Formats: sequence, C-alpha cells, structure tokens
Amino acid sequence: MSVLVMKFGGTSVANLDRIRRAAKRVGVEVAKGHDVIVIVSAMSGKTNELVGWVEETSPLFDAREYDAVVSSGENVTAGLMALTLQEMDVPARSWQGWQVPVRTTATHASARIEEIPTDNILAKFGEGMRVAVVAGFQGLAPDGRITTLGRGGSDTTAVAFAAAFGAERCDIYTDVDGVYTTDPRITDKARKLDRIAFEEMLELASLGAKVLQTRSVELAMRYKVKLRVLSSFEEQSDTAGTLVCDEEEIMESNVVAGVAHSRDEAKLTVLSVADRPGIAATIFTTLSEAGVNVDMIVQNISEEGRTDMTFSCPTGQVARAEDALARIKADGKLNYGELVVDKDVAKISVVGIGMRSHTGVAAKMFQVLSAEGINIKVITTSEIKISVLIDRKYMELAVQALHDAFELDKVA
Amino acid sequence: MSVLVMKFGGTSVANLDRIRRAAKRVGVEVAKGHDVIVIVSAMSGKTNELVGWVEETSPLFDAREYDAVVSSGENVTAGLMALTLQEMDVPARSWQGWQVPVRTTATHASARIEEIPTDNILAKFGEGMRVAVVAGFQGLAPDGRITTLGRGGSDTTAVAFAAAFGAERCDIYTDVDGVYTTDPRITDKARKLDRIAFEEMLELASLGAKVLQTRSVELAMRYKVKLRVLSSFEEQSDTAGTLVCDEEEIMESNVVAGVAHSRDEAKLTVLSVADRPGIAATIFTTLSEAGVNVDMIVQNISEEGRTDMTFSCPTGQVARAEDALARIKADGKLNYGELVVDKDVAKISVVGIGMRSHTGVAAKMFQVLSAEGINIKVITTSEIKISVLIDRKYMELAVQALHDAFELDKVA
Repeated sequence: MSVLVMKFGGTSVANLDRIRRAAKRVGVEVAKGHDVIVIVSAMSGKTNELVGWVEETSPLFDAREYDAVVSSGENVTAGLMALTLQEMDVPARSWQGWQVPVRTTATHASARIEEIPTDNILAKFGEGMRVAVVAGFQGLAPDGRITTLGRGGSDTTAVAFAAAFGAERCDIYTDVDGVYTTDPRITDKARKLDRIAFEEMLELASLGAKVLQTRSVELAMRYKVKLRVLSSFEEQSDTAGTLVCDEEEIMESNVVAGVAHSRDEAKLTVLSVADRPGIAATIFTTLSEAGVNVDMIVQNISEEGRTDMTFSCPTGQVARAEDALARIKADGKLNYGELVVDKDVAKISVVGIGMRSHTGVAAKMFQVLSAEGINIKVITTSEIKISVLIDRKYMELAVQALHDAFELDKVA
Repeated sequence: MSVLVMKFGGTSVANLDRIRRAAKRVGVEVAKGHDVIVIVSAMSGKTNELVGWVEETSPLFDAREYDAVVSSGENVTAGLMALTLQEMDVPARSWQGWQVPVRTTATHASARIEEIPTDNILAKFGEGMRVAVVAGFQGLAPDGRITTLGRGGSDTTAVAFAAAFGAERCDIYTDVDGVYTTDPRITDKARKLDRIAFEEMLELASLGAKVLQTRSVELAMRYKVKLRVLSSFEEQSDTAGTLVCDEEEIMESNVVAGVAHSRDEAKLTVLSVADRPGIAATIFTTLSEAGVNVDMIVQNISEEGRTDMTFSCPTGQVARAEDALARIKADGKLNYGELVVDKDVAKISVVGIGMRSHTGVAAKMFQVLSAEGINIKVITTSEIKISVLIDRKYMELAVQALHDAFELDKVA
C-alpha cells in the first residue's frame, strides 16, 4: 500500500467548482494506485468570518469556544469533498478531527499534535475506501474539547498525517506554484525553486514567506516527510512545484537560496539601562508575558555602567510593548531613560544552507546594501541566515539588489 | 437544583445582536436561580446554504456526509452563545452533539434520539457552571459518525434534554408568539391559545402548523415535558406564549381548539382496480417504497368486482407517485384503468380534544362548508380531528367560516 497525503488550502476549495477541480486531482492519484488522505482547509474567507464573529462577541474570548466555532469551516469542506469524490465513483468518506482522533495538547487556538492513531483509517482503506478526507486545522484535547492548531494549521495536519501513515509524499496545494527565490511581486527575476532544504524553508517560513506554516516544516524535517508545494491551478505533473526535502537530496544549489523580507517590523530602543546581569531577563520576560513576539535583539556598547537595548517586533505589537515597559518603569522594576520607537523599518534576510561552507556572504550582503546607499540599523545572523533591519522605503530596492548580486535568477 | 431548557430557533440567533438578546433572556432565568440548558439552531439561512451545497454537489447524496456538513451551523451558534454568556459574566460552555453525547439511531438525516447521558453536564453544573449551551439538531450514531434529526430537529433536541434532565419546563423561543386557533394570515380573528393539549398540538404540528417538529411534541407527551412556545421578540414573562401540556392541566377549553390548513395537497384516484384482498397493500407499499408520503386514503364502493382507490399526498410527490404506479402497471403487478390527478386541492382540519365527549362536530363542519357552497372531496377522521380535502381556491373561505362557526375567537 502506498499512501499519499494531499492538502488543499482555502483558495483551492473556495467554492463547489474548485472542490471539483481538487477532487479530480485526487482522482488521478487514486487511479495511479495510491490510497489518498486529503486534508482540507475551510473555504476561503470562512475562517475569517468565524474569527470575526468570535472577536466581535468577546474581545478576550475563551479560546475553547473560539476553537469550537472556528473549526466548523473545515468540517463543511471535508463533507463536500467526500461527496464530490463519491460522485466521481471514488470511494471516500470524511473525518473530523475528533473522529480520527487527532490528539493534541490542550493549548487552545495553538495546540500541537501529539498523536494520530492510524488504525481507524487503515481499516477503511482495507475495506476498499480509497480516500480519507480529513478536516484540517483541528484536533481533540485530552479533556474531549476541540482544539485548533493556529493559522495555517492545516499544513501541519497534512505533514503530521504523512508522518503517521509513512506517506510516500505530502503535496500541499495552494494558490502559488512553489517556493521562489524571493517575492515575485518585488522582482520579476524571482525564480521558482525545484527543491529547497527543510532548514532553508524553515527560515523562509518564519521570515514571512507565507507558503507553509512554520510548524509544518519543523515536523516534516523531524520525520523526513517529502513535502511538495504546488499550485492547484496549474497542470498536474510529478515534478511541478517545489520539493522541500533533506539537504542530501539537493545535488547542486546556490550558496544563497532566497531573499526574504518582512514589512511589518518595528525597532524599539530602551535607552540607558543599567549594564548588569538580569536586566535583559527583566525586559524580555516582561515583553513575553505581554504577548510581544520579540525577534532581533542587540545590546550596544556600555558607557559608564549604562547601555542601550534594541529589539524588533511586529508593528501591531508596539503599543503592547510600550505599555509593558512603561509599567515596569512605573513599578520601579526597571530604570531607563527613554523608549525610542521606529515603526518604519523592514527586515531583509538572505537564507541558504550553502552559507555553512561559504564565507563572505555577510560581507557581500553589506557591500551590496552600502553600494545602494542603504543604512543597516540592526544585524542578526544564524548558521544559514543573515537578517538586517533597514528603512522600509528601501525594502524593494534591497531585495532587488541582493537578488541580482547573489545571481538567484540563475540555476547553480 | 432546578433545570430549565431554553431553545432558540434560527431567527432568534440570526446574528450577533439577536444572540445577545437571547443570551439576556437566559441571564434572567439564571438570575432566578435556574441552571439552564440552552439548545440552539443554526443562524437562520445557514442550514439552507449548507443543504444547497450538498444537493448541488451530489443530488443523491450520502446522508452520512450530508449530516457531517449540515450539522456545522449549530456548532457555530453554540460557541457564539457560550461566549456571549461569558461576556455577561454567566459561567457557560458549549457542547456539540458528540460531546454530550446525544446518542441516536444510525438513520442519517432523520435520526431518533436514543439516550442523553446527563453526568457530564451535571458535573459542570456542580462545579459552578450555570448554562450548558448545546448544538441542537445533531447527535452521534453508534458507529461514531454525526447524525441529524431532520428539519426542526432542534425542537426535539430541546424536549429530549428536558426529559433527560427532568427540567421544570422547556421553552421554545421562535418568531411567533405562540400557537393560534388558526393561521393569523388567513383571519385576523385568530386567537393565541394560552394552553393546548399535547394531542391537539400533535395534530396541528403534523397538519402543517410549522411551530414545532412533530417528533418533539410526541416526546414531550410521552415524558410529560411542560413545553412552552413563545416569541424571542416580545417582552419576557412567565405566562407569555402557549403552554403545550397534559389535557388535565387545561381547565376549560373549546370543543374545537383550532382550524388547520395545508395548501400543498394533491388528490390521486386509481380507477377500476380489482376489489380483492392485497390490492391496497400493493398500491401503498409501492408508494411508500417510492418515498411518497400518503396522507388520506379512501376506497369507493365496489361495482362488478372493481373499485376506485383515492389518496392524497404533497403536490411535490405527485410525479414520483405517477412513476411508481405506471411501473407496477407495466410490470403486470397491478391492473387499473386510469390515474386521475387533482393538484388543486387543500386540506382543512378541525382539531380538539373536546370532540371525544362532544358529538356533532363533524356534522357542523360539513354544514358550514355546504352553506358556503364548498364541495368536500375526501373526508378522514380521528378521535380528535376531522379533515377534508376541498378545492384550493376555497381554502381561506373555509378556514374563516369554520373559525367563526366554532367561535374560536372567544375564550371558552
């Protein structure tokens, strides 16, 4: 038996006609002899509608009820997909998360999958069923209540099923035809990658290339799931899209795989804090408890026992950060001079596993930006990534210049 | 502990504002000291949308998938109602059918409730929760799949919960303010009844007075559930609406409680069939298997060993009835002359438990219709009901004349 997992996102199941087109793709794989597990999202717009109702009803909502409401969109698509397949004479049935059951943690609204029993679905495959349609994004908490996995969670459902069933491949159908060297809206030189390493995809996903939920890439990497991103609106073929895979499976590659950008960044600097142990812990524990997702952190050189602490976070969380820092100043927990906020910055990153063995990538990046007259405000690096904060007005220019300089339009 | 069941229909939860108004009514009962079980329908229009998608996808749909899709509307309302109550500081949580679980038969799309365990919800009441919000209309089949109870099924959910929890009362909030002596759109003399007996309500419900699902009235009668129908758009009071109750609880009442009508009736006559045992069984087994809901049946006087068989059914099922009868004629299973179809008829019924002890109701009904020049085509009677088929064009006239003649505008 060879199981294939196929996941269809919201735009791929936006209406009955698109569900039929998706079902035809499933039919082709069934005809090739695969047993297929189809993971579906809600019809596009439905989840936003449900989230809107919940937030309007209760701004500080009970996440358990949020999950109960918001998970319903996927149930509708799962049933409709099963009916569509049956109409095409493909034996199929739907499963809701609790029916499998997709066991998760109790962290409502952002639960993590803990276990997916396979016996129930395998028994049905044994009886001649060819397609199990599973509502994505949802699971069952230990206490029997419904959970959801966070935005983009259906990707994670798909990868988790692929891992649990030892699937030959996990195909993620979406409205883009693969992973690009950079955002094609910024430069038409952007090139679709045939393959990308898990580590690279992980950096790109977390950097705002919204192709896959970060968690799904983590899972795929851990369980060696062959993950393919492809468009449900293009011709079907075995080599379409981008394969996210182990780096050993990528024969040749550029040193840099892609240039990512993130527009909604803000830079905050806490001026003149005491330069002694525990201060960073105080600041960032406070911010974490206030729900601020701090990204880059830089500490300046100390002068006369005082230093400046700079960090970045999404612009939407600046108000929360300001509140939290003002509160600990008022409480006397932290003494600092001023909080300087710059909301007009963007983050640019170059990503590539080739950096591990090639030196000079950072130097080249800084030279390219300098040649364009772009000032770098903050720098952070990891083994396979270099990120900088710059003025937002230079974002497109920086992406284009780096894409050219690293010759990403050319195959290695 | 005193449990109250409150059910809100689709128009009573049509949007967030109406859900808030409904929640306020629940809050009033909680403040009086009741633990409340709230049963909710889908927001009005949602179930029709879902049914439309299923039928467009698959005209001869798999009822198990139909149930999986169509039940999702109630889940949304249940979560939103729980959140709304929480915002009002009323401790509440939602339950979907499978979480209670509401155990039903496996007859998908028209399942019957078999058991409602109370321990789960009672335990939460014990912990301080004051309102259990339950998604109506749905349940769990023995094999773990979702079932629905048929149109209007949330009424039945409500009564079944009232029975299981020994509720003080089951209040059905809808868009009408009670049960009337007849349709107020036909005569403005129609009067709201303060009380009506289960048996009468059962006849009225099955006769097309679409206030309550028939099955819910049957259940209420069997388990002696005090059932109240009232409007969610009127002032709240303990005596609002109509109480459906045991006849012993009704001190005085008219002989006739109400005049019901049904517009979409058709009369079919199978001419010249053999007058011998088994013929009626052949005809009506065939119709039943074809999904035709036969209502009234009359067999004419036999002449020379042959007779005519007349029956009524909804106009929408006439084509099916014609097909089925033509088929058994062609197969040689039934020999008959002609099938005469009259699609322009309506059914008028007078209903009242007083008929048991009062004679002359039928005679009076026939005299009234005769005085108006209305010809009676078919008559059937039960212990507490007399129904006639007449030309549809006389329907309103007949209802008005009978309402006047039995003085239904006056309290007994």
